[in-house]
Amino acid sequence: MAQNIYDNPDFFAGYSQLPRQVHGLDGAPEWPAIRTVLPDLSGKHIVDLGCGFGWASRWMREHGAATVLGLDLSENMIHRAKADTSDSQITYQIADIETLELPGAAFDLAYSALTFHYIRDFDRLTQMIYRALVPGGSIVFTIEHPVFMAAVHPHWIADEDGRKTWPVNRYSIEGERQTDWFAKGVLKYHRTISTTLNTLMRVGFTIRTIEEFAPSAEQIRANPELEDEIERPMMLLISASR
Amino acid sequence: MAQNIYDNPDFFAGYSQLPRQVHGLDGAPEWPAIRTVLPDLSGKHIVDLGCGFGWASRWMREHGAATVLGLDLSENMIHRAKADTSDSQITYQIADIETLELPGAAFDLAYSALTFHYIRDFDRLTQMIYRALVPGGSIVFTIEHPVFMAAVHPHWIADEDGRKTWPVNRYSIEGERQTDWFAKGVLKYHRTISTTLNTLMRVGFTIRTIEEFAPSAEQIRANPELEDEIERPMMLLISASR
Repeated sequence: MAQNIYDNPDFFAGYSQLPRQVHGLDGAPEWPAIRTVLPDLSGKHIVDLGCGFGWASRWMREHGAATVLGLDLSENMIHRAKADTSDSQITYQIADIETLELPGAAFDLAYSALTFHYIRDFDRLTQMIYRALVPGGSIVFTIEHPVFMAAVHPHWIADEDGRKTWPVNRYSIEGERQTDWFAKGVLKYHRTISTTLNTLMRVGFTIRTIEEFAPSAEQIRANPELEDEIERPMMLLISASR
Repeated sequence: MAQNIYDNPDFFAGYSQLPRQVHGLDGAPEWPAIRTVLPDLSGKHIVDLGCGFGWASRWMREHGAATVLGLDLSENMIHRAKADTSDSQITYQIADIETLELPGAAFDLAYSALTFHYIRDFDRLTQMIYRALVPGGSIVFTIEHPVFMAAVHPHWIADEDGRKTWPVNRYSIEGERQTDWFAKGVLKYHRTISTTLNTLMRVGFTIRTIEEFAPSAEQIRANPELEDEIERPMMLLISASR
């Protein structure tokens, strides 16, 4: 079972205050990049893996999706998602994506935001998603970038000129990474970019686009603290089709 | 025109002493990984872009290639490649890959080792290579990994535990990087992984494999200084088909 850090009270209290939880998709600077790679949603059946408060599930229904199944390990998240949603075509369920089995050929799109880096067995997950998609179906997901996750001590340092610099070590040593983020010992799984992409291709997916999120000049003007994200790749956005 | 650092006497003198120049392919730790992604070479027409001393051009002929065209900007390199080769089916020419035009549908494989990061216009290059390949043809190339190239001061640092750590900054700012490597002001061009992969896909290539070279335990036993390469991704190996 994946670690259920989201139901740790300290973690949940801090996490709930993130701009992306308070403001929804508008608080997620990578959302415009995600929108550009989402397929046409009209009439589509979608599974949202790690749906959190349900922001994206609701957005996809408002943009034409026929049904959305929102899944999350966290009881807190699913409770809040249900409370915030009044739409009979969105179903929320508590589910552990590490061991989840979806019905075969049941979805047109598998969507996931910042969830798969909590999953130990990415190979199993991608095989399961491949089976759950119809031919021609899509997978669109974001994860923390492996450059962001690799180091033993993943925090900003300064180079000899004082420039904000991100440390990389242990890049090719895949597996568990423990960090302190709202709570101690948050457990994530580091995989190289090549492992992530080769796993998708080996399972049968065709890679469509890869984005390493960086804020636009306009986003930095509106939110100056985003400027740091120019220095390091923080998120990876991948779209692929079955 | 691309910078011709290889004909700088200081650079050439230092470069010629690298294990991969003295020992050829056996001195290049990434060579076993390249071999596993090379297509069957039997009867194939191959262009080797940035052929250097011709080690790979000769190896490919010895492994079944019908013809190899080896191209390099450096007069020193081409002179030495010609001197070291006695094979009428290998042709070496001085050429600037930045502006090179190859004949259409003339090659089954475009191979390039650690050259494309010297090229400013990767979009033009990939379009030209796409046209020069027959349908079903392949491109296999290595470049310096963008994580290796991005920072203003790309050299090892230590983290708070003393672990060798690689600095990353300016990752999303693409373009020129000047470094001192055997000579001052060696000019390279930084591109993100996503730009490299999306450019290939937009031109029409299907990505086959992506490797971020890391030495095996056996290679580290034979050559302990390779152990550092566990900490950071130094090279990117990409294979794609037309």
